[in-house]
Amino acid sequence: MKMFGKTTKLLVASALIAGLATAATAAQKVYKWKLATTWGPTLHPFIDAPTKMAEMVEKMSDGRLQIRIDASNKHKSAFGILDMVKGGQYEMGHSASYYWKGKDINLLPFTTMPFGMTAPEQYAWFYYGGGMELMQKAYAKHKVLSYPGGNTGNQMGGWFRKEINSLDDLKGLKMRIPGFAGEIMAKLGLTVTNIAPGELYTSLERGTIDALEWVGPGMDIKMGFHKIAPYYYTGWHEPATELQFLVNERAFKKLPKDLQEILVTAMKLSSYDMYIQNYDMSAKAWDSIAKEYPNIKIKTLPKEVMDAMKKANDELLVEMTKDQPLLKEVLDSQKAYQKKARAWTEMSDYLYLKDNL
Amino acid sequence: MKMFGKTTKLLVASALIAGLATAATAAQKVYKWKLATTWGPTLHPFIDAPTKMAEMVEKMSDGRLQIRIDASNKHKSAFGILDMVKGGQYEMGHSASYYWKGKDINLLPFTTMPFGMTAPEQYAWFYYGGGMELMQKAYAKHKVLSYPGGNTGNQMGGWFRKEINSLDDLKGLKMRIPGFAGEIMAKLGLTVTNIAPGELYTSLERGTIDALEWVGPGMDIKMGFHKIAPYYYTGWHEPATELQFLVNERAFKKLPKDLQEILVTAMKLSSYDMYIQNYDMSAKAWDSIAKEYPNIKIKTLPKEVMDAMKKANDELLVEMTKDQPLLKEVLDSQKAYQKKARAWTEMSDYLYLKDNL
Repeated sequence: MKMFGKTTKLLVASALIAGLATAATAAQKVYKWKLATTWGPTLHPFIDAPTKMAEMVEKMSDGRLQIRIDASNKHKSAFGILDMVKGGQYEMGHSASYYWKGKDINLLPFTTMPFGMTAPEQYAWFYYGGGMELMQKAYAKHKVLSYPGGNTGNQMGGWFRKEINSLDDLKGLKMRIPGFAGEIMAKLGLTVTNIAPGELYTSLERGTIDALEWVGPGMDIKMGFHKIAPYYYTGWHEPATELQFLVNERAFKKLPKDLQEILVTAMKLSSYDMYIQNYDMSAKAWDSIAKEYPNIKIKTLPKEVMDAMKKANDELLVEMTKDQPLLKEVLDSQKAYQKKARAWTEMSDYLYLKDNL
Repeated sequence: MKMFGKTTKLLVASALIAGLATAATAAQKVYKWKLATTWGPTLHPFIDAPTKMAEMVEKMSDGRLQIRIDASNKHKSAFGILDMVKGGQYEMGHSASYYWKGKDINLLPFTTMPFGMTAPEQYAWFYYGGGMELMQKAYAKHKVLSYPGGNTGNQMGGWFRKEINSLDDLKGLKMRIPGFAGEIMAKLGLTVTNIAPGELYTSLERGTIDALEWVGPGMDIKMGFHKIAPYYYTGWHEPATELQFLVNERAFKKLPKDLQEILVTAMKLSSYDMYIQNYDMSAKAWDSIAKEYPNIKIKTLPKEVMDAMKKANDELLVEMTKDQPLLKEVLDSQKAYQKKARAWTEMSDYLYLKDNL
């Protein structure tokens, strides 16, 4: 340094400042993102998955990536999430893939399917059985990235005011059961309706409907259905409902590599975490319901009904996959994987539980 | 800036350089850690959990936290992990808590217990039922932090060369089954031995032992037991074996907050991930074994045997918890949680599977 005069030193100093400042600026650049959810701000544990994801991201990135969560009461577009993420109004969304069935039938099977895989089976399919690749393939044309966003585990079949002993008992029954499961029930002769969540309790109490499905004890307990419907039927239609994170592809590509890794890791962890959180909520809520309302009976739909539902399901899938090669590819992949995974589930957890109930 | 002369500018410039350099140095400081595993370098998926954890950490921290994985062939101390992490030779370890039973009986129940919780039940206990708090309490005196490190799911009861139809069939049988499960089997009249993994196949083939337990199809397939033992018994002794990350407490406290969050998140995700990876490995391995060796029979130990094992288990636990208040607190917490969680498992996955095998 001896050979340089004052002016040279100043130039060197300036160059150093500029260099460090650029590095520091790049390293410190703060990305402020917004995420829109289908859910209201108190719908636990659904709203917790994106909330915890954003908290992890902020802490891990030391504040360099901040994600604001807008619940449905803010953006007023509960079922517009895919469009808003696609259009870039929101960098991210949290919803469920089967809501986009009307826009793109190929997006249906990434949430859960009637008589389909359980949660660990389905996670194994996503991460080790080709599921993630198929999901990205299906979402590619929408220019959004899709990731598992939290699992409810097995959903209950619903609350019924009277016992179901035969197919005949179902005919003409009025039930709130939306989506693909509703189509199956309609084939069995039920009158299927959709009613806003806020009106469900009164509708069931007044007999406007005879039965309804919601989620499981962890989320049902707040709705109070156990006070007015004594039969709680086990599930068949949503054995492992996986919610969904959506990310605008262009926004994702603009993130530095370390923030991309932080974001993907946080989404993946908060997804598993919600599965476990809802397991805990369901266990505790059912324990409390069973103690306070010992008259409630856990029932499984009779074999005759189950067989008719499986038949209706198969028929609907044949219609649905006609001229839909990608949908068929996804469903075939799920079916083949489920067969292998179910054999393992049977010899491990199922036979263990059989002796330890 | 107008009022300052050249010298002042230089001082300002120097101060700026110094300030930026400090910030940049702190932000860029690289932590190089080492992790010792109980496993060899090819024991999948056990070795994958710490490996993937370290990869996630390095990418998320942009190289600021690097963790070198030393498998057991490197450090030659497979069962010295707790001591090495405690002593600071290694900042981290990857092993299983029940291996430390001889050093500290309180550390036994954080892996799995005979007739205990399934994987989702146990994760719910750890993260939402007070399990993590009890584990940190038990490890506090060792000055190490302990985290779940990957679950095998339900382990199989083992490979038997002959069918077991009664308690009498077990008497005098020579079986390789280590640990607490071995003590139960000894109470039932078996001759329990421990044999090095490399000699297991030959010992079973030559009749030095009549039966052995290992893990499950995903890991057993490499060992080749299916070629020489036609009875594959379902599990009872390790319904959800959780491996373990250990972190030296002082080393952890020296990390900046963002790296602590990155490390904890990566450990938590790689733990769940190993559970799913092994689910997939087991499903695929069993599918392949069943096709190639259709003579292999999946069997469940008869009720008479199961009842005797449960009785032996209860008796051993009473002896073990005498004058061990913390151990008793942990086991009572697990038992109470399992009761609630199992009621939910029964009405959700179990009853669903019953109709969908």
